[in-house]
Amino acid sequence: MTKNKTAVIALGGNAISPKGEIDTIANQFNNTRKSLSAIMHFLHEGYHLAITHGNGPQVGNALLRVELSIDKAPVLPLGICVADTEGGMGYMIEQSLQNALITDKFDREVVSIITQVVVDTDDPSINNPTKYIGSWYTGDEIKGLTEKFGWQVREVPGKGWRRVVPSPIPRQIINRKAIKHLVDIGIIVIAAGGGGIPVFIMDNGLYEGFDAVIDKDLASAVLARDIEAQELFILTDVDQVAINYGQSNEEKLGTIHVNDLKALFDEGQFPPGNMGPKVQAALNFIEYGGQSVTITSLEMVQKGLFGQKGTIVIP
Amino acid sequence: MTKNKTAVIALGGNAISPKGEIDTIANQFNNTRKSLSAIMHFLHEGYHLAITHGNGPQVGNALLRVELSIDKAPVLPLGICVADTEGGMGYMIEQSLQNALITDKFDREVVSIITQVVVDTDDPSINNPTKYIGSWYTGDEIKGLTEKFGWQVREVPGKGWRRVVPSPIPRQIINRKAIKHLVDIGIIVIAAGGGGIPVFIMDNGLYEGFDAVIDKDLASAVLARDIEAQELFILTDVDQVAINYGQSNEEKLGTIHVNDLKALFDEGQFPPGNMGPKVQAALNFIEYGGQSVTITSLEMVQKGLFGQKGTIVIP
Repeated sequence: MTKNKTAVIALGGNAISPKGEIDTIANQFNNTRKSLSAIMHFLHEGYHLAITHGNGPQVGNALLRVELSIDKAPVLPLGICVADTEGGMGYMIEQSLQNALITDKFDREVVSIITQVVVDTDDPSINNPTKYIGSWYTGDEIKGLTEKFGWQVREVPGKGWRRVVPSPIPRQIINRKAIKHLVDIGIIVIAAGGGGIPVFIMDNGLYEGFDAVIDKDLASAVLARDIEAQELFILTDVDQVAINYGQSNEEKLGTIHVNDLKALFDEGQFPPGNMGPKVQAALNFIEYGGQSVTITSLEMVQKGLFGQKGTIVIP
Repeated sequence: MTKNKTAVIALGGNAISPKGEIDTIANQFNNTRKSLSAIMHFLHEGYHLAITHGNGPQVGNALLRVELSIDKAPVLPLGICVADTEGGMGYMIEQSLQNALITDKFDREVVSIITQVVVDTDDPSINNPTKYIGSWYTGDEIKGLTEKFGWQVREVPGKGWRRVVPSPIPRQIINRKAIKHLVDIGIIVIAAGGGGIPVFIMDNGLYEGFDAVIDKDLASAVLARDIEAQELFILTDVDQVAINYGQSNEEKLGTIHVNDLKALFDEGQFPPGNMGPKVQAALNFIEYGGQSVTITSLEMVQKGLFGQKGTIVIP
């Protein structure tokens, strides 16, 4: 018997909330439905799957709702907001995928699992938070919020002020055994939404959540390792990773050996706020023993062209 | 090999947000931790477990946050709010239980599964919604909200106005196979939080959510049937079910045959807004083939006294 391949598919934020579109739940459902035709490709190929997804706009909105109801409803810490979006977005993706499966007469189950992710208590980002989250404010507005909620904040000249939180490195998926178990029997598992809920293991051995967010692509690489997937697909809004991005000598990367990609990464080719974490996630997964990482667009997957027109990282 | 018994434990709202207490997340975590000593009883007895929970105050607060941010963040439909609370509350219960297990050196995993529940498209409650949800309003306040959101509303003389939604009868847990699979291998599964997300199966076979809430105890009985549990425990704020409640001839029920309880139910002994759905859930589970339903308080379980001082329904 040929064992089915297992892959983790990381859906970019644009799969659900494309930039420049009015962000209603109806639109989110519509976009999710469209994105899932890409997922169907992998199912037709016989893959076992776990799916991760971003939650940037959704967790920003959740935080905004908490701020606007501060005197009328309990304040939710960021970890609970992330867990909430794993619930609501998991439901949306799950149901959309179930309907795609029903339409294609494909007998596969889908479940969404709330996912806690272990991070180090001494992660350097904890004392130096740099991940922007939530809304933009004027200096006066954010002063009040900082006092009320104990936020750390930063000014971006010309744009205003915004909250910053740590974005620690994910180390292990707490719920990995259950996720692996379900994926191994062919159930499609939606997990580690928004990068998962960051959790410390304290000196007494107990878990404790704290206010931070985890990069979704880095978490996807850890999930792929923890469930022993062979392949990781990072689906984003470009077809391929490029070097010398935006310059006259820009060059798109096709199939590339991990060491060559690492050299380009070390040169500083991939900016932290953009392609950097995706490339880092790819390097990590190959280092963990993964067989391949494909970074490409939903469109290339839908057209079945990512083999030729995506960036594929191999050992 | 003796097969482990499987039970579904339905945690009442008071297990997480007791009435009369300021409803902060810190308090919710504290209460959840206390409630879980009751759950540990079942683990020490070797049970395989699924845990359900209410979400009344939490979903009310979620709806309030949506209202208060109406012009600034996307409006979330009720189904998404329920899914969100399954995420946030699932995380809170899961982590609290994991910590109790770590403390007791008990090697059992816990996961939370977002749960969709099938209801009938012709459920009578859809055209006659009676389940109060969210905040209280004055007549003037609710008029604007009704126009904005298309709510159905009701006045309670002397208390004000409130939104009403359908509370359809749960028919089947969509995610039952995955839940049963995990429970059968000894993983503790938190599922059907808040009664689950109500979903229709449309004429074309596809799933579609709609604005309603499902009674948590009725959903727990369906879950218990769908995962082939032998026992259902409904944990609430009283030790036993009573007949002639609050009258001089009040009588508490101990162990009772399902037919005798059915006769009392048909007499109108159990009011719809209170013990009614719990007794109905008990009658349903025994009718589905369940071996016993215990309705009692967290306290009696913690003390190990529910065998003598709880209401136990048997076939």
